[in-house]
Amino acid sequence: MPGTESAREIMACAAERTVRFEQQTGEKPCLATVLVGDDPASATYVRMKRNRCAKLGIESRHVPLPASTTTEALVAAITELADDPAVHGILLQHPVPGHIDERAAFDAIPVGKDVDGVGSSSFAAMAFGRDGFASCTPAGIMRLLDAYGVDPSGKHAVVIGRSPILGKPMAMLLLARDATVTVCHSKTGDLPSIVRTADIVVAAVGKPEFVRGEWLKPGAVVVDAGYNEGNVGDVAFDEAGTRAQLLTPVPGGVGPMTIALLMEQTVEAAFRQAGLP
Amino acid sequence: MPGTESAREIMACAAERTVRFEQQTGEKPCLATVLVGDDPASATYVRMKRNRCAKLGIESRHVPLPASTTTEALVAAITELADDPAVHGILLQHPVPGHIDERAAFDAIPVGKDVDGVGSSSFAAMAFGRDGFASCTPAGIMRLLDAYGVDPSGKHAVVIGRSPILGKPMAMLLLARDATVTVCHSKTGDLPSIVRTADIVVAAVGKPEFVRGEWLKPGAVVVDAGYNEGNVGDVAFDEAGTRAQLLTPVPGGVGPMTIALLMEQTVEAAFRQAGLP
Repeated sequence: MPGTESAREIMACAAERTVRFEQQTGEKPCLATVLVGDDPASATYVRMKRNRCAKLGIESRHVPLPASTTTEALVAAITELADDPAVHGILLQHPVPGHIDERAAFDAIPVGKDVDGVGSSSFAAMAFGRDGFASCTPAGIMRLLDAYGVDPSGKHAVVIGRSPILGKPMAMLLLARDATVTVCHSKTGDLPSIVRTADIVVAAVGKPEFVRGEWLKPGAVVVDAGYNEGNVGDVAFDEAGTRAQLLTPVPGGVGPMTIALLMEQTVEAAFRQAGLP
Repeated sequence: MPGTESAREIMACAAERTVRFEQQTGEKPCLATVLVGDDPASATYVRMKRNRCAKLGIESRHVPLPASTTTEALVAAITELADDPAVHGILLQHPVPGHIDERAAFDAIPVGKDVDGVGSSSFAAMAFGRDGFASCTPAGIMRLLDAYGVDPSGKHAVVIGRSPILGKPMAMLLLARDATVTVCHSKTGDLPSIVRTADIVVAAVGKPEFVRGEWLKPGAVVVDAGYNEGNVGDVAFDEAGTRAQLLTPVPGGVGPMTIALLMEQTVEAAFRQAGLP
Protein backbone atom coordinates (compact mmCIF):
# COMPACT_ATOMS: atom_id res chain seq x y z
CA MET A 1 0.00 0.00 0.00
CA PRO A 2 2.05 2.94 -1.22
CA GLY A 3 -0.37 5.43 0.37
CA THR A 4 0.30 4.28 3.89
CA GLU A 5 4.00 3.68 3.21
CA SER A 6 4.67 7.02 1.53
CA ALA A 7 2.70 8.78 4.23
CA ARG A 8 4.86 7.09 6.85
CA GLU A 9 8.05 8.26 5.13
CA ILE A 10 6.83 11.83 4.82
CA MET A 11 5.81 11.88 8.47
CA ALA A 12 9.09 10.37 9.66
CA CYS A 13 10.87 13.17 7.85
CA ALA A 14 8.51 15.76 9.38
CA ALA A 15 9.22 14.34 12.86
CA GLU A 16 12.99 14.63 12.29
CA ARG A 17 12.66 18.20 11.11
CA THR A 18 10.52 18.96 14.16
CA VAL A 19 13.33 17.87 16.45
CA ARG A 20 15.76 20.00 14.48
CA PHE A 21 13.38 22.98 14.67
CA GLU A 22 13.16 22.67 18.43
CA GLN A 23 16.93 22.41 18.76
CA GLN A 24 17.44 25.53 16.68
CA THR A 25 14.65 27.71 18.04
CA GLY A 26 13.62 26.29 21.40
CA GLU A 27 10.07 26.18 20.06
CA LYS A 28 7.86 23.56 18.48
CA PRO A 29 6.08 23.90 15.15
CA CYS A 30 2.45 24.70 15.98
CA LEU A 31 -0.72 23.99 14.02
CA ALA A 32 -3.91 25.78 15.01
CA THR A 33 -7.07 23.81 14.23
CA VAL A 34 -10.30 25.75 13.93
CA LEU A 35 -13.56 23.80 14.14
CA VAL A 36 -16.92 25.51 13.81
CA GLY A 37 -19.94 23.63 15.13
CA ASP A 38 -20.15 20.04 16.23
CA ASP A 39 -20.42 17.90 13.14
CA PRO A 40 -19.15 14.51 14.38
CA ALA A 41 -17.23 13.66 11.18
CA SER A 42 -15.45 17.02 11.24
CA ALA A 43 -14.66 16.59 14.92
CA THR A 44 -13.15 13.18 14.14
CA TYR A 45 -11.01 14.57 11.32
CA VAL A 46 -9.68 17.34 13.56
CA ARG A 47 -8.93 14.85 16.32
CA MET A 48 -7.04 12.61 13.88
CA LYS A 49 -4.95 15.55 12.72
CA ARG A 50 -4.19 16.67 16.27
CA ASN A 51 -3.25 13.13 17.29
CA ARG A 52 -0.90 12.96 14.34
CA CYS A 53 0.65 16.28 15.39
CA ALA A 54 1.19 14.92 18.90
CA LYS A 55 2.88 11.78 17.54
CA LEU A 56 5.29 13.83 15.46
CA GLY A 57 6.13 16.31 18.22
CA ILE A 58 4.17 19.11 16.57
CA GLU A 59 2.16 21.29 18.92
CA SER A 60 -1.48 21.87 18.14
CA ARG A 61 -3.80 24.50 19.45
CA HIS A 62 -7.47 23.79 19.15
CA VAL A 63 -9.97 26.60 18.61
CA PRO A 64 -13.54 25.27 18.83
CA LEU A 65 -16.26 27.73 17.88
CA PRO A 66 -20.03 27.38 18.22
CA ALA A 67 -22.14 26.53 15.14
CA SER A 68 -23.71 29.99 15.41
CA THR A 69 -20.38 31.74 14.75
CA THR A 70 -20.71 34.51 12.16
CA THR A 71 -18.32 34.98 9.24
CA GLU A 72 -16.99 38.12 10.94
CA ALA A 73 -16.31 36.29 14.21
CA LEU A 74 -14.62 33.43 12.38
CA VAL A 75 -12.46 35.82 10.37
CA ALA A 76 -11.56 37.60 13.61
CA ALA A 77 -10.54 34.31 15.25
CA ILE A 78 -8.41 33.39 12.24
CA THR A 79 -6.84 36.85 12.17
CA GLU A 80 -5.85 36.48 15.79
CA LEU A 81 -4.07 33.22 14.98
CA ALA A 82 -2.53 34.86 11.91
CA ASP A 83 -1.04 37.56 14.14
CA ASP A 84 0.27 35.13 16.75
CA PRO A 85 3.96 34.36 16.12
CA ALA A 86 3.70 31.08 18.07
CA VAL A 87 1.24 29.68 15.49
CA HIS A 88 2.90 28.47 12.28
CA GLY A 89 0.00 26.90 10.45
CA ILE A 90 -3.78 27.37 10.48
CA LEU A 91 -6.28 24.70 9.52
CA LEU A 92 -9.94 25.59 9.18
CA GLN A 93 -11.85 22.32 9.12
CA HIS A 94 -14.43 22.28 6.34
CA PRO A 95 -17.24 22.24 5.63
CA VAL A 96 -18.26 25.14 7.87
CA PRO A 97 -21.96 25.77 8.64
CA GLY A 98 -23.86 27.05 5.61
CA HIS A 99 -24.43 30.60 6.85
CA ILE A 100 -20.69 31.28 6.89
CA ASP A 101 -18.82 32.65 3.88
CA GLU A 102 -16.26 29.85 3.75
CA ARG A 103 -14.18 31.50 1.03
CA ALA A 104 -13.85 34.70 3.09
CA ALA A 105 -12.72 32.59 6.06
CA PHE A 106 -10.20 30.61 3.99
CA ASP A 107 -8.85 33.85 2.54
CA ALA A 108 -8.32 35.30 6.02
CA ILE A 109 -5.52 32.75 6.51
CA PRO A 110 -2.27 34.43 5.46
CA VAL A 111 -0.52 32.58 2.65
CA GLY A 112 2.51 31.74 4.81
CA LYS A 113 0.33 29.96 7.39
CA ASP A 114 -2.08 28.37 4.91
CA VAL A 115 -0.62 24.88 5.41
CA ASP A 116 -3.85 23.27 4.21
CA GLY A 117 -3.54 25.21 0.92
CA VAL A 118 -7.15 26.39 0.82
CA GLY A 119 -6.75 30.15 0.29
CA SER A 120 -7.15 31.97 -3.02
CA SER A 121 -3.49 32.97 -3.01
CA SER A 122 -2.44 29.36 -2.48
CA PHE A 123 -4.68 28.31 -5.35
CA ALA A 124 -3.12 30.88 -7.66
CA ALA A 125 0.34 29.80 -6.49
CA MET A 126 -0.49 26.22 -7.52
CA ALA A 127 -1.83 27.40 -10.86
CA PHE A 128 1.14 29.63 -11.63
CA GLY A 129 3.92 27.52 -10.13
CA ARG A 130 4.76 30.04 -7.42
CA ASP A 131 5.86 29.55 -3.84
CA GLY A 132 3.02 28.61 -1.56
CA PHE A 133 1.40 25.62 0.11
CA ALA A 134 -0.61 23.27 -2.04
CA SER A 135 -4.02 21.95 -1.10
CA CYS A 136 -3.17 18.81 0.91
CA THR A 137 -5.25 16.17 -0.84
CA PRO A 138 -4.23 17.03 -4.42
CA ALA A 139 -0.63 17.53 -3.28
CA GLY A 140 -0.79 14.13 -1.56
CA ILE A 141 -2.11 12.59 -4.78
CA MET A 142 0.81 14.02 -6.76
CA ARG A 143 3.22 12.49 -4.26
CA LEU A 144 1.34 9.21 -4.46
CA LEU A 145 1.72 9.20 -8.26
CA ASP A 146 5.45 9.77 -7.73
CA ALA A 147 5.57 6.89 -5.27
CA TYR A 148 3.88 4.66 -7.85
CA GLY A 149 6.36 5.84 -10.48
CA VAL A 150 3.65 7.44 -12.60
CA ASP A 151 4.86 10.45 -14.61
CA PRO A 152 1.85 12.56 -15.65
CA SER A 153 3.73 14.38 -18.44
CA GLY A 154 1.98 14.03 -21.78
CA LYS A 155 -0.69 11.79 -20.28
CA HIS A 156 -4.40 12.50 -20.38
CA ALA A 157 -5.67 13.00 -16.83
CA VAL A 158 -9.39 13.18 -16.15
CA VAL A 159 -10.42 14.76 -12.85
CA ILE A 160 -14.00 14.04 -11.80
CA GLY A 161 -15.08 16.85 -9.49
CA ARG A 162 -14.44 20.59 -9.51
CA SER A 163 -14.40 21.65 -5.88
CA PRO A 164 -12.18 24.57 -4.86
CA ILE A 165 -10.01 22.45 -2.58
CA LEU A 166 -9.83 19.22 -4.54
CA GLY A 167 -10.89 19.09 -8.20
CA LYS A 168 -9.66 22.51 -9.30
CA PRO A 169 -6.28 22.49 -7.51
CA MET A 170 -5.82 18.86 -8.67
CA ALA A 171 -6.25 20.05 -12.26
CA MET A 172 -3.71 22.83 -11.72
CA LEU A 173 -1.10 20.51 -10.19
CA LEU A 174 -1.49 17.93 -12.97
CA LEU A 175 -1.24 20.70 -15.57
CA ALA A 176 1.94 21.96 -13.90
CA ARG A 177 3.39 18.48 -14.40
CA ASP A 178 2.50 18.61 -18.11
CA ALA A 179 -0.54 16.37 -18.15
CA THR A 180 -3.39 17.16 -20.52
CA VAL A 181 -6.20 17.73 -18.05
CA THR A 182 -9.96 17.35 -18.35
CA VAL A 183 -12.23 18.46 -15.52
CA CYS A 184 -15.60 16.68 -15.38
CA HIS A 185 -18.51 17.28 -13.01
CA SER A 186 -22.20 16.76 -12.46
CA LYS A 187 -23.11 18.60 -15.67
CA THR A 188 -20.73 16.60 -17.85
CA GLY A 189 -22.58 15.06 -20.78
CA ASP A 190 -21.20 11.59 -21.39
CA LEU A 191 -18.91 10.95 -18.44
CA PRO A 192 -18.12 7.28 -19.15
CA SER A 193 -16.89 8.03 -22.66
CA ILE A 194 -14.62 10.82 -21.39
CA VAL A 195 -13.25 8.69 -18.57
CA ARG A 196 -12.51 6.01 -21.16
CA THR A 197 -9.98 8.34 -22.84
CA ALA A 198 -8.02 8.85 -19.60
CA ASP A 199 -4.57 7.50 -18.78
CA ILE A 200 -5.00 8.84 -15.25
CA VAL A 201 -8.37 9.17 -13.49
CA VAL A 202 -8.82 11.09 -10.26
CA ALA A 203 -12.22 10.46 -8.71
CA ALA A 204 -13.23 13.25 -6.35
CA VAL A 205 -17.00 13.21 -6.42
CA GLY A 206 -17.99 12.06 -2.97
CA LYS A 207 -20.40 9.39 -4.22
CA PRO A 208 -19.79 5.77 -3.19
CA GLU A 209 -18.63 3.50 -6.05
CA PHE A 210 -19.66 6.12 -8.60
CA VAL A 211 -16.92 5.32 -11.13
CA ARG A 212 -17.55 1.91 -12.70
CA GLY A 213 -14.98 -0.55 -13.99
CA GLU A 214 -16.34 -0.54 -17.54
CA TRP A 215 -15.70 3.24 -17.76
CA LEU A 216 -11.96 2.71 -17.56
CA LYS A 217 -9.45 2.30 -20.33
CA PRO A 218 -7.56 -0.94 -19.65
CA GLY A 219 -4.27 -0.04 -18.03
CA ALA A 220 -5.44 3.29 -16.60
CA VAL A 221 -4.05 4.65 -13.35
CA VAL A 222 -6.97 5.31 -11.01
CA VAL A 223 -6.76 7.49 -7.92
CA ASP A 224 -9.71 7.29 -5.59
CA ALA A 225 -9.96 10.49 -3.56
CA GLY A 226 -13.40 9.65 -2.23
CA TYR A 227 -14.13 8.67 1.30
CA ASN A 228 -17.76 7.83 1.88
CA GLU A 229 -19.71 6.21 4.66
CA GLY A 230 -18.66 2.66 5.40
CA ASN A 231 -15.06 3.23 4.26
CA VAL A 232 -16.11 3.17 0.61
CA GLY A 233 -14.38 5.21 -2.08
CA ASP A 234 -15.71 6.87 -5.23
CA VAL A 235 -14.56 3.98 -7.42
CA ALA A 236 -16.15 0.52 -7.61
CA PHE A 237 -13.03 -1.17 -6.33
CA ASP A 238 -13.49 -4.77 -7.48
CA GLU A 239 -14.70 -3.87 -10.97
CA ALA A 240 -12.05 -1.23 -11.47
CA GLY A 241 -9.32 -3.47 -10.13
CA THR A 242 -9.67 -5.82 -13.07
CA ARG A 243 -9.06 -3.07 -15.65
CA ALA A 244 -6.81 -0.54 -13.94
CA GLN A 245 -3.05 -0.82 -13.97
CA LEU A 246 -3.04 0.84 -10.56
CA LEU A 247 -5.89 1.66 -8.23
CA THR A 248 -5.42 3.40 -4.90
CA PRO A 249 -7.26 1.69 -2.05
CA VAL A 250 -9.79 3.24 0.31
CA PRO A 251 -8.82 3.43 3.11
CA GLY A 252 -5.03 3.49 2.98
CA GLY A 253 -4.51 5.39 -0.26
CA VAL A 254 -5.16 9.10 -0.56
CA GLY A 255 -6.33 9.60 3.05
CA PRO A 256 -3.00 9.06 4.84
CA MET A 257 -1.23 11.19 2.21
CA THR A 258 -3.53 14.14 2.95
CA ILE A 259 -2.62 14.14 6.64
CA ALA A 260 1.06 13.55 5.87
CA LEU A 261 1.14 16.59 3.61
CA LEU A 262 -0.53 18.69 6.29
CA MET A 263 2.21 17.68 8.74
CA GLU A 264 4.99 18.30 6.24
CA GLN A 265 3.63 21.72 5.33
CA THR A 266 3.15 22.74 8.96
CA VAL A 267 6.79 21.97 9.72
CA GLU A 268 7.91 23.71 6.53
CA ALA A 269 5.86 26.79 7.52
CA ALA A 270 7.59 26.85 10.90
CA PHE A 271 11.02 26.78 9.26
CA ARG A 272 10.08 29.51 6.79
CA GLN A 273 8.66 31.76 9.50
CA ALA A 274 11.81 31.31 11.56
CA GLY A 275 13.89 32.19 8.50
CA LEU A 276 15.62 28.79 8.65
CA PRO A 277 16.47 26.62 5.63
CA MET B 1 -19.17 39.70 -37.48
CA PRO B 2 -20.44 39.31 -33.92
CA GLY B 3 -17.03 40.18 -32.47
CA THR B 4 -17.01 43.67 -33.88
CA GLU B 5 -20.73 44.15 -33.31
CA SER B 6 -20.81 42.92 -29.71
CA ALA B 7 -17.71 44.96 -28.96
CA ARG B 8 -19.44 48.02 -30.34
CA GLU B 9 -22.47 47.46 -28.10
CA ILE B 10 -20.35 46.95 -25.00
CA MET B 11 -18.38 50.09 -25.73
CA ALA B 12 -21.49 52.15 -26.42
CA CYS B 13 -22.75 51.12 -23.02
CA ALA B 14 -19.40 51.97 -21.42
CA ALA B 15 -19.49 55.42 -23.04
CA GLU B 16 -22.97 56.07 -21.65
CA ARG B 17 -21.92 55.02 -18.17
CA THR B 18 -18.87 57.27 -18.46
CA VAL B 19 -21.13 60.27 -19.05
CA ARG B 20 -23.21 59.27 -16.06
CA PHE B 21 -20.11 58.83 -13.90
CA GLU B 22 -18.92 62.32 -14.80
CA GLN B 23 -22.34 63.79 -14.02
CA GLN B 24 -22.42 62.10 -10.63
CA THR B 25 -18.83 62.64 -9.52
CA GLY B 26 -17.39 65.46 -11.61
CA GLU B 27 -14.57 63.08 -12.55
CA LYS B 28 -13.83 60.77 -15.44
CA PRO B 29 -13.03 57.08 -15.17
CA CYS B 30 -9.27 56.79 -15.54
CA LEU B 31 -7.14 53.91 -16.82
CA ALA B 32 -3.41 53.95 -16.15
CA THR B 33 -1.38 52.14 -18.81
CA VAL B 34 2.07 50.96 -17.83
CA LEU B 35 4.49 50.06 -20.64
CA VAL B 36 7.98 48.78 -19.89
CA GLY B 37 10.52 49.01 -22.72
CA ASP B 38 9.89 49.83 -26.34
CA ASP B 39 8.63 46.70 -28.01
CA PRO B 40 6.79 48.12 -31.05
CA ALA B 41 3.87 45.64 -30.88
CA SER B 42 3.29 46.39 -27.19
CA ALA B 43 3.48 50.12 -27.89
CA THR B 44 0.85 49.69 -30.60
CA TYR B 45 -1.47 47.74 -28.29
CA VAL B 46 -1.19 50.40 -25.59
CA ARG B 47 -1.86 53.13 -28.14
CA MET B 48 -4.96 51.30 -29.39
CA LYS B 49 -6.27 50.96 -25.86
CA ARG B 50 -5.61 54.63 -25.06
CA ASN B 51 -7.28 55.72 -28.31
CA ARG B 52 -10.29 53.65 -27.40
CA CYS B 53 -10.41 55.27 -23.96
CA ALA B 54 -10.32 58.71 -25.57
CA LYS B 55 -13.20 57.81 -27.92
CA LEU B 56 -15.36 56.67 -25.00
CA GLY B 57 -14.58 59.66 -22.79
CA ILE B 58 -12.38 57.62 -20.43
CA GLU B 59 -9.24 59.33 -19.28
CA SER B 60 -5.96 57.48 -19.63
CA ARG B 61 -2.67 58.13 -17.95
CA HIS B 62 0.36 56.69 -19.63
CA VAL B 63 3.35 55.53 -17.57
CA PRO B 64 6.23 54.57 -19.87
CA LEU B 65 9.22 52.96 -18.16
CA PRO B 66 12.64 52.08 -19.60
CA ALA B 67 13.42 48.47 -20.57
CA SER B 68 15.99 48.39 -17.76
CA THR B 69 13.31 48.88 -15.07
CA THR B 70 13.73 46.46 -12.17
CA THR B 71 10.90 44.43 -10.65
CA GLU B 72 11.13 46.62 -7.53
CA ALA B 73 10.86 49.83 -9.53
CA LEU B 74 7.93 48.48 -11.53
CA VAL B 75 6.14 47.35 -8.38
CA ALA B 76 6.77 50.79 -6.87
CA ALA B 77 5.30 52.51 -9.94
CA ILE B 78 2.24 50.27 -9.81
CA THR B 79 1.85 50.84 -6.06
CA GLU B 80 1.86 54.59 -6.64
CA LEU B 81 -0.99 54.19 -9.14
CA ALA B 82 -2.75 51.83 -6.71
CA ASP B 83 -2.64 54.54 -4.05
CA ASP B 84 -3.84 57.30 -6.37
CA PRO B 85 -7.61 57.81 -5.95
CA ALA B 86 -7.83 59.44 -9.40
CA VAL B 87 -6.76 56.17 -11.08
CA HIS B 88 -9.54 53.56 -11.31
CA GLY B 89 -7.90 50.86 -13.38
CA ILE B 90 -4.32 49.76 -14.00
CA LEU B 91 -3.15 47.95 -17.10
CA LEU B 92 0.37 46.54 -17.21
CA GLN B 93 1.08 45.75 -20.85
CA HIS B 94 2.61 42.32 -21.24
CA PRO B 95 4.96 40.75 -21.98
CA VAL B 96 7.40 42.71 -19.82
CA PRO B 97 11.18 42.32 -20.34
CA GLY B 98 12.45 38.89 -19.25
CA HIS B 99 14.43 40.07 -16.21
CA ILE B 100 11.23 41.31 -14.53
CA ASP B 101 9.10 39.06 -12.29
CA GLU B 102 5.89 39.61 -14.20
CA ARG B 103 3.74 37.76 -11.68
CA ALA B 104 4.99 39.96 -8.84
CA ALA B 105 4.17 43.01 -10.92
CA PHE B 106 0.69 41.75 -11.81
CA ASP B 107 0.04 40.95 -8.17
CA ALA B 108 0.98 44.48 -7.12
CA ILE B 109 -2.20 45.69 -8.82
CA PRO B 110 -4.94 45.77 -6.16
CA VAL B 111 -7.88 43.56 -7.05
CA GLY B 112 -10.29 46.51 -7.29
CA LYS B 113 -8.12 48.19 -9.95
CA ASP B 114 -7.13 45.02 -11.79
CA VAL B 115 -9.38 45.79 -14.76
CA ASP B 116 -7.27 43.58 -17.04
CA GLY B 117 -7.89 40.65 -14.66
CA VAL B 118 -4.27 39.49 -14.54
CA GLY B 119 -3.62 39.28 -10.79
CA SER B 120 -3.63 36.10 -8.71
CA SER B 121 -6.65 37.28 -6.74
CA SER B 122 -8.56 37.95 -9.94
CA PHE B 123 -7.66 34.48 -11.18
CA ALA B 124 -8.95 32.88 -7.97
CA ALA B 125 -12.08 35.02 -8.19
CA MET B 126 -12.71 33.62 -11.70
CA ALA B 127 -12.07 30.07 -10.47
CA PHE B 128 -14.31 30.37 -7.42
CA GLY B 129 -17.06 32.55 -8.86
CA ARG B 130 -16.27 35.51 -6.59
CA ASP B 131 -16.44 39.24 -7.25
CA GLY B 132 -13.50 40.47 -9.26
CA PHE B 133 -12.49 41.42 -12.77
CA ALA B 134 -11.98 38.64 -15.28
CA SER B 135 -9.04 38.41 -17.61
CA CYS B 136 -10.20 40.45 -20.62
CA THR B 137 -9.62 38.01 -23.48
CA PRO B 138 -11.29 34.97 -21.87
CA ALA B 139 -14.08 37.19 -20.56
CA GLY B 140 -14.49 38.62 -24.06
CA ILE B 141 -14.69 35.08 -25.45
CA MET B 142 -17.44 34.17 -22.99
CA ARG B 143 -19.41 37.22 -24.11
CA LEU B 144 -18.78 36.31 -27.73
CA LEU B 145 -20.20 32.82 -27.12
CA ASP B 146 -23.25 34.48 -25.59
CA ALA B 147 -23.57 36.74 -28.65
CA TYR B 148 -23.44 33.66 -30.89
CA GLY B 149 -26.07 31.98 -28.68
CA VAL B 150 -23.70 29.20 -27.65
CA ASP B 151 -24.43 27.81 -24.17
CA PRO B 152 -21.35 25.97 -22.86
CA SER B 153 -23.29 24.00 -20.21
CA GLY B 154 -22.73 20.26 -20.58
CA LYS B 155 -20.57 20.77 -23.69
CA HIS B 156 -17.01 19.56 -24.00
CA ALA B 157 -14.71 22.55 -24.40
CA VAL B 158 -11.07 22.06 -25.36
CA VAL B 159 -8.73 24.96 -24.62
CA ILE B 160 -5.42 24.81 -26.45
CA GLY B 161 -2.90 26.80 -24.41
CA ARG B 162 -2.34 27.15 -20.67
CA SER B 163 -1.02 30.67 -20.14
CA PRO B 164 -1.86 32.46 -16.88
CA ILE B 165 -3.84 35.21 -18.62
CA LEU B 166 -5.55 33.23 -21.36
CA GLY B 167 -5.63 29.42 -21.27
CA LYS B 168 -6.02 28.91 -17.53
CA PRO B 169 -8.61 31.66 -16.85
CA MET B 170 -10.47 30.54 -20.00
CA ALA B 171 -10.71 27.04 -18.51
CA MET B 172 -12.01 28.47 -15.22
CA LEU B 173 -14.68 30.63 -16.90
CA LEU B 174 -15.89 27.75 -19.09
CA LEU B 175 -16.01 25.49 -16.03
CA ALA B 176 -18.03 28.11 -14.17
CA ARG B 177 -20.56 27.91 -17.00
CA ASP B 178 -20.76 24.12 -16.61
CA ALA B 179 -18.69 23.04 -19.59
CA THR B 180 -16.53 19.94 -19.29
CA VAL B 181 -13.11 21.46 -19.89
CA THR B 182 -9.90 19.98 -21.27
CA VAL B 183 -6.68 22.01 -21.25
CA CYS B 184 -4.14 21.03 -23.91
CA HIS B 185 -0.65 22.42 -24.48
CA SER B 186 2.71 21.75 -26.09
CA LYS B 187 3.21 18.51 -24.15
CA THR B 188 -0.19 17.08 -25.07
CA GLY B 189 0.19 13.67 -26.65
CA ASP B 190 -2.31 13.36 -29.46
CA LEU B 191 -3.76 16.83 -29.83
CA PRO B 192 -5.82 16.23 -33.00
CA SER B 193 -7.68 13.31 -31.46
CA ILE B 194 -8.52 15.34 -28.35
CA VAL B 195 -9.64 18.35 -30.37
CA ARG B 196 -11.86 15.99 -32.37
CA THR B 197 -13.91 15.30 -29.21
CA ALA B 198 -14.64 19.00 -28.62
CA ASP B 199 -17.94 20.78 -29.03
CA ILE B 200 -16.15 24.07 -28.39
CA VAL B 201 -12.51 24.72 -29.26
CA VAL B 202 -10.60 27.75 -28.02
CA ALA B 203 -7.26 28.13 -29.78
CA ALA B 204 -4.81 30.19 -27.74
CA VAL B 205 -1.42 28.94 -28.83
CA GLY B 206 0.10 31.87 -30.67
CA LYS B 207 1.10 29.80 -33.71
CA PRO B 208 -0.28 30.78 -37.12
CA GLU B 209 -2.84 28.34 -38.55
CA PHE B 210 -1.82 25.71 -35.99
CA VAL B 211 -5.27 24.14 -35.64
CA ARG B 212 -6.19 22.29 -38.83
CA GLY B 213 -9.64 21.75 -40.26
CA GLU B 214 -9.41 17.96 -40.14
CA TRP B 215 -8.89 18.11 -36.35
CA LEU B 216 -12.39 19.42 -35.84
CA LYS B 217 -15.58 17.55 -35.14
CA PRO B 218 -18.12 18.63 -37.76
CA GLY B 219 -20.37 21.25 -36.20
CA ALA B 220 -17.86 22.39 -33.58
CA VAL B 221 -17.79 25.98 -32.36
CA VAL B 222 -14.27 27.32 -32.88
CA VAL B 223 -12.93 30.42 -31.16
CA ASP B 224 -9.65 31.73 -32.52
CA ALA B 225 -7.86 33.73 -29.82
CA GLY B 226 -4.62 33.87 -31.78
CA TYR B 227 -3.26 36.96 -33.39
CA ASN B 228 -0.08 36.33 -35.28
CA GLU B 229 1.99 38.29 -37.76
CA GLY B 230 0.14 39.14 -40.94
CA ASN B 231 -3.27 39.22 -39.22
CA VAL B 232 -3.36 35.42 -39.08
CA GLY B 233 -5.07 33.50 -36.28
CA ASP B 234 -4.22 30.16 -34.65
CA VAL B 235 -6.77 28.31 -36.76
CA ALA B 236 -6.45 27.47 -40.48
CA PHE B 237 -9.46 29.58 -41.37
CA ASP B 238 -10.49 28.18 -44.76
CA GLU B 239 -10.08 24.54 -43.76
CA ALA B 240 -11.81 25.01 -40.42
CA GLY B 241 -14.62 27.04 -41.97
CA THR B 242 -15.86 24.01 -43.92
CA ARG B 243 -16.29 21.88 -40.76
CA ALA B 244 -17.06 24.33 -37.97
CA GLN B 245 -20.57 25.44 -37.18
CA LEU B 246 -19.10 28.77 -36.07
CA LEU B 247 -15.59 30.13 -36.43
CA THR B 248 -14.55 33.52 -35.09
CA PRO B 249 -12.62 35.58 -37.62
CA VAL B 250 -9.18 37.11 -37.17
CA PRO B 251 -9.21 40.08 -37.12
CA GLY B 252 -12.68 41.13 -35.99
CA GLY B 253 -13.46 38.29 -33.59
CA VAL B 254 -11.80 38.00 -30.19
CA GLY B 255 -9.56 41.08 -30.55
CA PRO B 256 -12.27 43.78 -30.39
CA MET B 257 -13.95 41.94 -27.51
CA THR B 258 -10.75 42.07 -25.45
CA ILE B 259 -10.53 45.84 -25.70
CA ALA B 260 -14.28 46.23 -25.12
CA LEU B 261 -14.06 44.24 -21.89
CA LEU B 262 -11.12 46.36 -20.73
CA MET B 263 -13.23 49.49 -21.27
CA GLU B 264 -16.29 48.02 -19.56
CA GLN B 265 -14.25 46.88 -16.56
CA THR B 266 -12.48 50.24 -16.24
CA VAL B 267 -15.82 52.06 -16.05
CA GLU B 268 -17.18 49.45 -13.64
CA ALA B 269 -14.10 49.89 -11.42
CA ALA B 270 -14.69 53.64 -11.33
CA PHE B 271 -18.30 53.14 -10.22
CA ARG B 272 -17.31 50.64 -7.56
CA GLN B 273 -14.57 52.87 -6.19
CA ALA B 274 -16.98 55.78 -6.02
CA GLY B 275 -19.46 53.55 -4.19
CA LEU B 276 -22.04 54.09 -6.94
CA PRO B 277 -24.32 51.35 -8.36
